[in-house]
Amino acid sequence: MNLKAKGILLTGLLLSALAAGGCPNGGPESGTRKEADAPVSYFEISDALRSEGLRKENAYALLSDLVRVSGPRLPGSPVAASAVEHMRRVMDELGFETWLEPTSVQHWVRGEESAEILDQTGRKIDSLTISALGGSVPTPGSRGITARVIEVASMAELDGLGPSVRDDVVFFNRPMDRTFVDTFRAYGEAARFRFEGPSKAARHGAAAALIRSVTPRIDDFPHTGMVGYDPAVVKIPAAAISTEDAEALSARLKKNPSLRLNLRLSCANLEPTLSANVIGQIRGSVEPGEIVLLSGHLDSWDLAVGAHDDGAGCVQAVEALRLIQACGLKPRRTIRAVMFMNEEFGASGGRDYAADPGRKNEKHIVAMESDRGGFLPLYFGVGGSPEAREKFAAHEEVFRSLGLSGIRAGGGGSDIEPIVRQGAVPMGFIPNGQTYFDLHHSGLDTLDKVHPRELELGAIVLALAAFIASEEGI
Amino acid sequence: MNLKAKGILLTGLLLSALAAGGCPNGGPESGTRKEADAPVSYFEISDALRSEGLRKENAYALLSDLVRVSGPRLPGSPVAASAVEHMRRVMDELGFETWLEPTSVQHWVRGEESAEILDQTGRKIDSLTISALGGSVPTPGSRGITARVIEVASMAELDGLGPSVRDDVVFFNRPMDRTFVDTFRAYGEAARFRFEGPSKAARHGAAAALIRSVTPRIDDFPHTGMVGYDPAVVKIPAAAISTEDAEALSARLKKNPSLRLNLRLSCANLEPTLSANVIGQIRGSVEPGEIVLLSGHLDSWDLAVGAHDDGAGCVQAVEALRLIQACGLKPRRTIRAVMFMNEEFGASGGRDYAADPGRKNEKHIVAMESDRGGFLPLYFGVGGSPEAREKFAAHEEVFRSLGLSGIRAGGGGSDIEPIVRQGAVPMGFIPNGQTYFDLHHSGLDTLDKVHPRELELGAIVLALAAFIASEEGI
Repeated sequence: MNLKAKGILLTGLLLSALAAGGCPNGGPESGTRKEADAPVSYFEISDALRSEGLRKENAYALLSDLVRVSGPRLPGSPVAASAVEHMRRVMDELGFETWLEPTSVQHWVRGEESAEILDQTGRKIDSLTISALGGSVPTPGSRGITARVIEVASMAELDGLGPSVRDDVVFFNRPMDRTFVDTFRAYGEAARFRFEGPSKAARHGAAAALIRSVTPRIDDFPHTGMVGYDPAVVKIPAAAISTEDAEALSARLKKNPSLRLNLRLSCANLEPTLSANVIGQIRGSVEPGEIVLLSGHLDSWDLAVGAHDDGAGCVQAVEALRLIQACGLKPRRTIRAVMFMNEEFGASGGRDYAADPGRKNEKHIVAMESDRGGFLPLYFGVGGSPEAREKFAAHEEVFRSLGLSGIRAGGGGSDIEPIVRQGAVPMGFIPNGQTYFDLHHSGLDTLDKVHPRELELGAIVLALAAFIASEEGI
Repeated sequence: MNLKAKGILLTGLLLSALAAGGCPNGGPESGTRKEADAPVSYFEISDALRSEGLRKENAYALLSDLVRVSGPRLPGSPVAASAVEHMRRVMDELGFETWLEPTSVQHWVRGEESAEILDQTGRKIDSLTISALGGSVPTPGSRGITARVIEVASMAELDGLGPSVRDDVVFFNRPMDRTFVDTFRAYGEAARFRFEGPSKAARHGAAAALIRSVTPRIDDFPHTGMVGYDPAVVKIPAAAISTEDAEALSARLKKNPSLRLNLRLSCANLEPTLSANVIGQIRGSVEPGEIVLLSGHLDSWDLAVGAHDDGAGCVQAVEALRLIQACGLKPRRTIRAVMFMNEEFGASGGRDYAADPGRKNEKHIVAMESDRGGFLPLYFGVGGSPEAREKFAAHEEVFRSLGLSGIRAGGGGSDIEPIVRQGAVPMGFIPNGQTYFDLHHSGLDTLDKVHPRELELGAIVLALAAFIASEEGI
């Protein structure tokens, strides 16, 4: 393939770098080029993106600014609103076309929370490290709920107890199975208790639910997450407790099954609030109405700044655009970064984006979502039809030159699901997931857990994939 | 393949687990089994090793004990000697056959060290964070060397300066190229200045050499490493300075090229000392004279406990043996863990092991060395002939079930090189190398940088590979 013949316009940095027989700021590393079937030009483009990215590690600077300027970005919060303004300003300053699209978000506020273990006289003997689940109703009155604690390890065990748990606090103590290599599978199995457990307990008359934090580590950080109330059942208060406290509470219950707990949550569900998806793009030079979408979600939980979940995905999308621009690439199709709002409370941002009237004149050919943390990219996943994967597989060696093992089936995410249903091919890199759930939805999800280089590699891979999709179509 | 037909003896834990249609402590995860060409039994064995390993994360406990009991393990030091005793005792308690094999080690001690920048009147205006290179000679007398600092970024630049650097301190300020995805390649290019630089400078009459630390990060930790003196040239003192100080010193030199430095190093090369390789094994049930070797090196630099380099490799070898034993596997051939001594000062342990009279009645069929840190294993490398790789490639799906991308060319290491020259096939997992050189040979190589789960995955992969090699031969 010849660059000019394909209509790829090379300007500025990249053009001079290619003319000089190399890429900017670093020698080409793709020593496997001779074995590759992929057109040589994508190797040169990949080298340019890689050199620019790894030299500057700008994704980390973007993330650092985001968490410093905003902080924890719970949907509907003033902090989330300031993050919207901040990310739009950042993209304005980079010279992208930017705008906001409105989305209505659930507005939940945490309030005060405590859980105290009481002896038979009602005196406090210990307290638990807890965090109300997102969306939880509060405990009643000012004195909360005081009740027995009934521990269960499965839904079947709960169903076996039936109405005997009436007015009790049901304690779901199902550890995340750390023997799985696939931590996302282990997470899915355990998170079910957080999402469905409270309503299952309410169905039997329970007064409240405590959930063992969904993390493979034993520590004193509660990991929150959304509770999924069954509309047919009364809503009961629900909170996560740290895994250390789950182990300790379980041990206490074995000695004294009748111990009581006082639970107080003053969280509240306020009126839904208007927030926004933040959008920036580089308009396509030939087919501007065809869109290659890059995305993360801008909202986070409130226990930390959401550096990995999903500050990382947001800044990778912006950095991918910046890399494309910095390397002087002029994509044929439009490459667009969307920072969705409200993923954590039901992904309304993704739904509203797909339903927005602005989509009428657009065709999304590809959608990528980075929402598995800013860790080392392991491979590139392409979903949709086998033909789409075959088309990308032709460029596998280029992805390998960036350290990925290759191209496999994969891609998707909750925010891009609606646009994928409209025909966009889901794709994206799959990062190392071994440590993500150590920090997920907890106070541990802070900037110091992100490695600038691994974060940047994700942005580079996204830039490459987006540019190839823009040039080749799908 | 049938387990009994192949003579694999299954006992205890694994046998009951297989009889129950699963593996101990966790369900089988290898959902790709139906697509695999590999014999089903290795999937079951892999599941058993994985469940036992990821549930207990015992490699981390071994590492924690090692660094707590010993500490930094410079060859020849009392701490290294106590580490030898400790690791042998650990393997004794696990019930392995253990012994020590002597090896003579270079015994270098650090002493005091300082580097001060002086103004024109000889008054100190700043000090540099330095660390003498391993094996460096001391500065003369009690007042050290006071001289101009001449910065160079390449060997060619030094040669261009020639005898004009006589009696100066040559400052090699060649950054590690962080635009390479392959950090080991970037390390190799930059570490050349640490290894060869001092003698190249001495050839032009320089009084001493300062080396920019070989790390891609900018921080205030010096990263040491061995200096490789050219026997034909006078030995001059050599030290690494932190990358922060390298940047600052370079900026100062641009303003004031005539600034002077006082360098004092009281390090010393003592008489060589006798130390030992630590060996433990599970004797083969059918071919005990054929050896599958697993290894790491027990010595470390003295600036930290060497948690990744190479405490990780040592405990992974021991843990691999423990996993094989805990799963009730009885290998046909002998599986041996060797903790080599003195890798950091020239790999005498590996040479002496290969030359030991005990090797006469043994045939090493496979040699694995884990010395790239206890990070996530990415793929499994098999060296030697294409036939050896083909033989292992038949089991690729089993390795994939442990999260590896597959089997590729690779394997090797400085300690196993001599035994590989005698015919052993080098192999081993290649871990994520993106962050290794952040901490390599510096005060940052501490236990808290190791993730228990990623460390354990390496041990599981080694156990699987060793067991397959033991059963199948090569």
